[in-house]
Amino acid sequence: MSKSKWSRGVAVVGAGMSRFGAFPDKTSRDLFVEAFKDLNKNMDKALDPKKIEAFYLGNFSSDQFEKQAHLAPILASWLGLSPISAVRVEDACASGGVAIRQAALAIASGEYDVVLVGGLEKMTDLRISEVTEALGTAADTQFEIPAGFTFPGFYAAMATAYLHEYGADRNAFFDVAIKNHKNGALNDKAQFEQTIEQIMEDKKARAVQKGRPEPTWKTDLEFLQDPKGNPNVAWPMTLFDCSPVSDGAAMALLVSEDLAKQFSHHPIYLIGSGQASDGALPERATLSSIPAAEKAGKQAYEMAGLTPDDIDLAEVHDCFTVAEIMASEDLGFFPRGEGWKAAMEGKTARDGEHPINTSGGLKAKGHPVGASGVGQVVEIWKQLNGLAGERQLPNAPKIGLTHNVGGSGQTCVVNIFERRD
Amino acid sequence: MSKSKWSRGVAVVGAGMSRFGAFPDKTSRDLFVEAFKDLNKNMDKALDPKKIEAFYLGNFSSDQFEKQAHLAPILASWLGLSPISAVRVEDACASGGVAIRQAALAIASGEYDVVLVGGLEKMTDLRISEVTEALGTAADTQFEIPAGFTFPGFYAAMATAYLHEYGADRNAFFDVAIKNHKNGALNDKAQFEQTIEQIMEDKKARAVQKGRPEPTWKTDLEFLQDPKGNPNVAWPMTLFDCSPVSDGAAMALLVSEDLAKQFSHHPIYLIGSGQASDGALPERATLSSIPAAEKAGKQAYEMAGLTPDDIDLAEVHDCFTVAEIMASEDLGFFPRGEGWKAAMEGKTARDGEHPINTSGGLKAKGHPVGASGVGQVVEIWKQLNGLAGERQLPNAPKIGLTHNVGGSGQTCVVNIFERRD
Repeated sequence: MSKSKWSRGVAVVGAGMSRFGAFPDKTSRDLFVEAFKDLNKNMDKALDPKKIEAFYLGNFSSDQFEKQAHLAPILASWLGLSPISAVRVEDACASGGVAIRQAALAIASGEYDVVLVGGLEKMTDLRISEVTEALGTAADTQFEIPAGFTFPGFYAAMATAYLHEYGADRNAFFDVAIKNHKNGALNDKAQFEQTIEQIMEDKKARAVQKGRPEPTWKTDLEFLQDPKGNPNVAWPMTLFDCSPVSDGAAMALLVSEDLAKQFSHHPIYLIGSGQASDGALPERATLSSIPAAEKAGKQAYEMAGLTPDDIDLAEVHDCFTVAEIMASEDLGFFPRGEGWKAAMEGKTARDGEHPINTSGGLKAKGHPVGASGVGQVVEIWKQLNGLAGERQLPNAPKIGLTHNVGGSGQTCVVNIFERRD
Repeated sequence: MSKSKWSRGVAVVGAGMSRFGAFPDKTSRDLFVEAFKDLNKNMDKALDPKKIEAFYLGNFSSDQFEKQAHLAPILASWLGLSPISAVRVEDACASGGVAIRQAALAIASGEYDVVLVGGLEKMTDLRISEVTEALGTAADTQFEIPAGFTFPGFYAAMATAYLHEYGADRNAFFDVAIKNHKNGALNDKAQFEQTIEQIMEDKKARAVQKGRPEPTWKTDLEFLQDPKGNPNVAWPMTLFDCSPVSDGAAMALLVSEDLAKQFSHHPIYLIGSGQASDGALPERATLSSIPAAEKAGKQAYEMAGLTPDDIDLAEVHDCFTVAEIMASEDLGFFPRGEGWKAAMEGKTARDGEHPINTSGGLKAKGHPVGASGVGQVVEIWKQLNGLAGERQLPNAPKIGLTHNVGGSGQTCVVNIFERRD
C-alpha cells in the first residue's frame, strides 16, 4: 500500500545524457546542450521548451572545478529557458538525486507542472591533485581532512571494517568492478565502454608494442589481483575499485502525473522517495554500512508501499566497489554481511536476482559527481521502457530504484520509479 | 483574490539571526549556532528540535570562502538534527530567499510539516581581492568577467544607465545610504550600528587625534560627496554606495499553515512567492531595471492577490544603493524613473509611504551573501509582530515583502508575508 504524503504524483516523461568521459575541448555548457539534445531525441512526443516552467540543477562544485558559481540561471539562459525559475541544489555527489527529489516536491506542491532537472560536473580541467582536494571539501574539512583523509581513504576505512566484521573475501570488490565494466561495455554513453578483460588485453598489447615482456595475466581477476596491472590506491581499494574523474551532464523532464501522457507515450512514475543525512564518519556507530542510505531507502519503500524484493533493478552509488556492496545491504536486497557473497555469486548481474548498475554504474559509466544521480534516472527510464539496447534486462522490468550518496554518507537520497501499462 | 496554486499554506513561526559583521574568531558553525539560539530565544512557545523534519540551507559558496562544500548535512549534524534531510540551495546572493521558497514548496507538497531554513556565509577569512574574485564567480565567468567586470562595476553600469535614462540626481544614491544607516543604527544585529553622521564624526575625531586638520564636513551628505570621506569604487558607486563584506547567519522556522498556532502565538503567513531568472547583463534589453525582479514580484503579487500599495514594508536587496532604487520600481512601489525622487523625498524612510529596509538593509546590516535573504525574513517577522524595538514601524504593519537578488539579476526571488489577527 502506497503511503505517499504528496498532494499529487510526479512522472518522468523524458531523459537523456551526454557521453561521460574526459573532454578537454568541451565546456560544461557544451555537455549540457549535448544532454538536452539527447533528451529531446529520446522523447516520443516532441517537447515544446516553452512548456518548461522551472529548472533544477544538481551540481557539486563548479565553484571549484570551473570558477563558476550561480550556474543554474546561466545554464537556463544557455538553453533559452530564461526567465523560468532556476535553482541549483548541492549535496556533494548526491546533488543530482537531490535535484530530482526537489523538482518532484515542487511539482507535488502544485506550483509547477513541468520541470527540467539537470545534473552536471566538469572535473577534468583541474590537475588530479586539485580534483582530490576539491572532492575533499565534501567531507568535514574541520575534522576529517586535517586527519589525513581523502575519499579513497574514507571508503578504504569502510572496506576494511566490512572485511573485518564479516570475514568477507576481498575478491568480491573485484567482482563488482568486473560486472560493472561488463555492463558499461554495452553503454555507448559510458566513459569506459570496455570490459576489464578488454582493458587487460590492451595493456598486454601495449607492453608487447613497447618491446617489454608480455604480462602473464590469464583472467580479469588475475589482472586485478596484480599490483602491476591494478595498483593500490588506499588498501584495500585499488585503482579498479575507484570510479573515475569525469565530465558529463544528464537530464530528466518531470511533470505532474495527470499531464504525463501529454508529454510521452511511455512515462514512468516516481512512486517512492526518501532522503536522510548524517554526521561525519567518526560520528557514526558503524563503518560497515551507510545509515543515511538505509533510512532514505526505508522512507522510499514506505512511500511506494514496496519491499526490496519488489525492485526489478537498481542503480546504486558505486563511487568505490565496496560502496555497491554496502548499498545492496543498506537497501535490503541482501542481509547484512551477505552482500559480498551475493556479488561473488553473480546475484547482482543482469541475469541475477537483483540486477545492480546495468548502466555500468559510476565505476564504468563515469562519475561526473553532480550528474551521477540524474544519470541513474536516465538508465532506469531506459530499462523500464525497453530502450537499453544490448544491456536491456529481459522480462520487461517494472520497478527501478536509484540510490545516490553524498560524501562518505552524510547525504543519501533514494527514488523509486514504476512503469504502468 | 489570492490565486495560490499551492496545495496548502505555509507559516513562519520563528526567526533569528547572529550578529552580522566581521568575526575573525568565529567559524561559520559558531555563527550558525548563534542564529539557532536567537531563533529559540525569540520563540514564544518552546521549540522541540525533534519536531524539525528537514533543513534547507542558503549558502553561496562556502566552497570558495571556507573550502567546505556539502555544508547542509554538516550544519544539520552540528545542531544535532541528523538524520533529517539536509539540502543546500545556491543562487548566488539570492540563495537565502530561494531556500525559504524551496522549503515552503516542500511543505506545500505535503512531504514535510516542519522545516528549518538557514542562511549562512563566512566571507572575511579571505583577503579582499580573493573575496572580489569569489563574488565574481556569481557572474558569467566566460563572458562578463574576462571583459573586466567585478560586481561594483556591474552595478556602476546599471547606475550610469539609470542616471542617463531618467536624468536622475546622483545624490539619491547617497540618500539611500543615509536612510539605511539611520535604520541600521537602531538594529543591534547590524554590522554598522551607526548613522553616516556618526561615522563622519568618528572620522573627524580620528583626524584630530592623529594631529591632522579636522575635515570640514558639515552634513552627512557633504561627507558622502567628498572623495576624501567617501572614495570612489566604480563611478558612480562610491564606498558608501556598496554593502560590506560580512560574516553572518540567519534562520526561520516554517511549518504548514494548520500547525502554525501549535508553534507560535504569532505566526506570519507566506501568502505570495515568485522566482525568475535571466541571462547575463549583456543579454538584457535594459540596464536600468532588473527584469527578473519585476517578474518575480508579479508572480508573488498575483499569488497573494495584492498590489504594491498593499505592502506595508519591504526588505529589498540593496547590495548597492542603486539596486534599492531599481527595486522600488521593479516591485511597483513607484513608477519607472521615479524611484530616485521617492528616495530623495523620504518616501522609503520608516515614516514614508513605502518603508524600505527598516533593518538597515544589506548596506548597514551587512551582506553575508547566503544569509541575506533569510535575514530579510527575520526583519519582516519582527516588524509584523511589533518586535523591532526602536525601529518598529507604527500602525501595526500587516503585510511585508522580501526581495532577494542573485548576481546582477540572473536570479530574483520575492516572498510576501502576512500577519493575521
